[in-house]
Amino acid sequence: MKIISLLGATGSIGTQTLDIIREHPDTFQLGAMSVGKNIDLARKFIYEFRPQLVSVQDYQDCATLNTEFPNTKFTFGHEGLIEVAIYEKAEILVNAVLGSVGLNPTLQAIETGKVIAIANKETLVTAGHLVMDAVRKNNVSLLPVDSEHSAIFQALQGEKHKNIERLILTASGGSFRDRSRAELENVTVKDALNHPNWSMGAKITIDSATMMNKGLEVIEAHWLFDMPYEKIDVLLHKESIIHSMVEFHDSSIIAQLGTPDMRVPIQYALTYPERAQLPSAKRLDLAQIGKLHFQEMDQDRFRCLRFAYHAGKEGGTMPTALNAANEVAVAAFLEGKIRFLQIEDLIEKAINAHQTMAHPSLTDIQEVDKETRQYVRSLL
Amino acid sequence: MKIISLLGATGSIGTQTLDIIREHPDTFQLGAMSVGKNIDLARKFIYEFRPQLVSVQDYQDCATLNTEFPNTKFTFGHEGLIEVAIYEKAEILVNAVLGSVGLNPTLQAIETGKVIAIANKETLVTAGHLVMDAVRKNNVSLLPVDSEHSAIFQALQGEKHKNIERLILTASGGSFRDRSRAELENVTVKDALNHPNWSMGAKITIDSATMMNKGLEVIEAHWLFDMPYEKIDVLLHKESIIHSMVEFHDSSIIAQLGTPDMRVPIQYALTYPERAQLPSAKRLDLAQIGKLHFQEMDQDRFRCLRFAYHAGKEGGTMPTALNAANEVAVAAFLEGKIRFLQIEDLIEKAINAHQTMAHPSLTDIQEVDKETRQYVRSLL
Repeated sequence: MKIISLLGATGSIGTQTLDIIREHPDTFQLGAMSVGKNIDLARKFIYEFRPQLVSVQDYQDCATLNTEFPNTKFTFGHEGLIEVAIYEKAEILVNAVLGSVGLNPTLQAIETGKVIAIANKETLVTAGHLVMDAVRKNNVSLLPVDSEHSAIFQALQGEKHKNIERLILTASGGSFRDRSRAELENVTVKDALNHPNWSMGAKITIDSATMMNKGLEVIEAHWLFDMPYEKIDVLLHKESIIHSMVEFHDSSIIAQLGTPDMRVPIQYALTYPERAQLPSAKRLDLAQIGKLHFQEMDQDRFRCLRFAYHAGKEGGTMPTALNAANEVAVAAFLEGKIRFLQIEDLIEKAINAHQTMAHPSLTDIQEVDKETRQYVRSLL
Repeated sequence: MKIISLLGATGSIGTQTLDIIREHPDTFQLGAMSVGKNIDLARKFIYEFRPQLVSVQDYQDCATLNTEFPNTKFTFGHEGLIEVAIYEKAEILVNAVLGSVGLNPTLQAIETGKVIAIANKETLVTAGHLVMDAVRKNNVSLLPVDSEHSAIFQALQGEKHKNIERLILTASGGSFRDRSRAELENVTVKDALNHPNWSMGAKITIDSATMMNKGLEVIEAHWLFDMPYEKIDVLLHKESIIHSMVEFHDSSIIAQLGTPDMRVPIQYALTYPERAQLPSAKRLDLAQIGKLHFQEMDQDRFRCLRFAYHAGKEGGTMPTALNAANEVAVAAFLEGKIRFLQIEDLIEKAINAHQTMAHPSLTDIQEVDKETRQYVRSLL
């Protein structure tokens, strides 16, 4: 029985992780979880999965749940996240929280030697060098949960790093892939949240529409697979069937394909290096789909991807600034405070204003994260 | 330095194998080769690669070459094939001869413990059980060279057999993929030899047009990957870019992709488990290709595929009869003796007439091969 700690249980990846635990009751058990403010859903999960430890965002919710579930230990806030992350009985931590708040719990969990299944891409984007240093030092496995990175990770099984020619991340193009920049002027939040292939959280859906999601994934791939940015390409593939690919020196390409079901990469991370049955997953029927389309990525159309490559290559604290600016800008768009294209403008201003620090410590990163957020808020 | 024995040096796979040796002069050396009747090309290869042992088909050619190249040992005929196959200094045998004549040399080479790179699919089709028994008994590696089987072999690296859900062989559809059966009545040899994607030998190009090539590949995959026929599917994919795929229990699919360059799977077999650079190989550019198409396979349109599944499932000597009938029928078509659709009719008659023997010995197989050829010739 593998005991799992889960950060971000009520989010999209979190609930799908619980679905995998539900499908394999003899293999997996939920030991600890963190939730945000969705206490109703948290309650259902506590009833069903009986975790020993639960962290919530606010003290008040913690106190309430404490009286309802006397056999469960409750905690809250940032310290609560860390408690869940390092929950000692857990063999695997699934980090599915949103944003750079996931960084510190991840670092702490790595110190305990747990396997880390990482869905929280901002952790690697903001502090990839610290995370990878800790991973090497503690000799832990850091397993990708993102469908693209899981695809690359699967394609690399049995292969050697030195034989890689390049990584090819596929991108659906998001909600607005068929619109010109002019047509993006007055798009609404509702338009932006209507992703063609994947059902995901709001923030990542907006990131897909701006292509920042792919940009963050490029930076994540750089760290996860130790590849220079020159060897990471992005290819538009609107069906999202080929989840990503690896090209080798001999020109051979290995790709991973599937239906858009995040439970497959989640389960792969939980069962790795094994695979388990997943009878409820829809099988890919390529004959029924008929055609797969591919198109070159246009970094003028999708400026956020250019920003991300720039930030990644610059390194140091620049990706932290990129990510912080993006988080604030996307939140502002979702709250109706700015228009869609202003997301890009705010990010551009923030990275132009940022002075890169080359080898930042965790404190430096947290400082840059905070300052960038303040700067972008000041522009709203 | 890996020393290579090559059966069928002047054929399509043979010359491309020599091209790989030419590209890696510090890694590979041609130790021995067999050729058929193309003595002019053989002469060039002897000059260039300086093999120690050369086998030709006819005694007269052997005698001629013997006087021309005093430092090379020459031999001929079926015994010559075997001498090349078991050439003691060779670490790898590349079996690229055509037809069931490749069986005995393969079995003999397996006994010597060499790695076998097999492009001669008829060997596995006619006597898969004997070959695989010998492979297990002598603990040798049998590596596929066919692009489809190499794709599956690559997709299986780092994976476990028990997690395979099914193999998916892709099929271009061959020269006549867009024609109805009615339109096949009067096609010419020239039409049939015009394959849309791959430049191959005449026999395999006709086999592609009848879809028997895919049928033989299904039987080959059954033996190479130890999979029941129910778990081997064929998918029409006219671009031949996805060379084949493996679906796992969790619904994840791993595919191998590339341009249609047989040197890539040949080199993979020669370098396995490593990969080597192949700068002269054209890189796959999916954005430039734009679209990949997929379509269900129609076994009424392509009757030879149905025959092959039938023969494979029946087992015993039935695949031997299927293959022998096909070889004679294709040769007759190439010689202008029969029309294209008569290839199917002859094969159908041969397998209907054949009484399957369940556990045939090598002698039984050779007998069935001979009898079936005689039977089909008697129908011409």
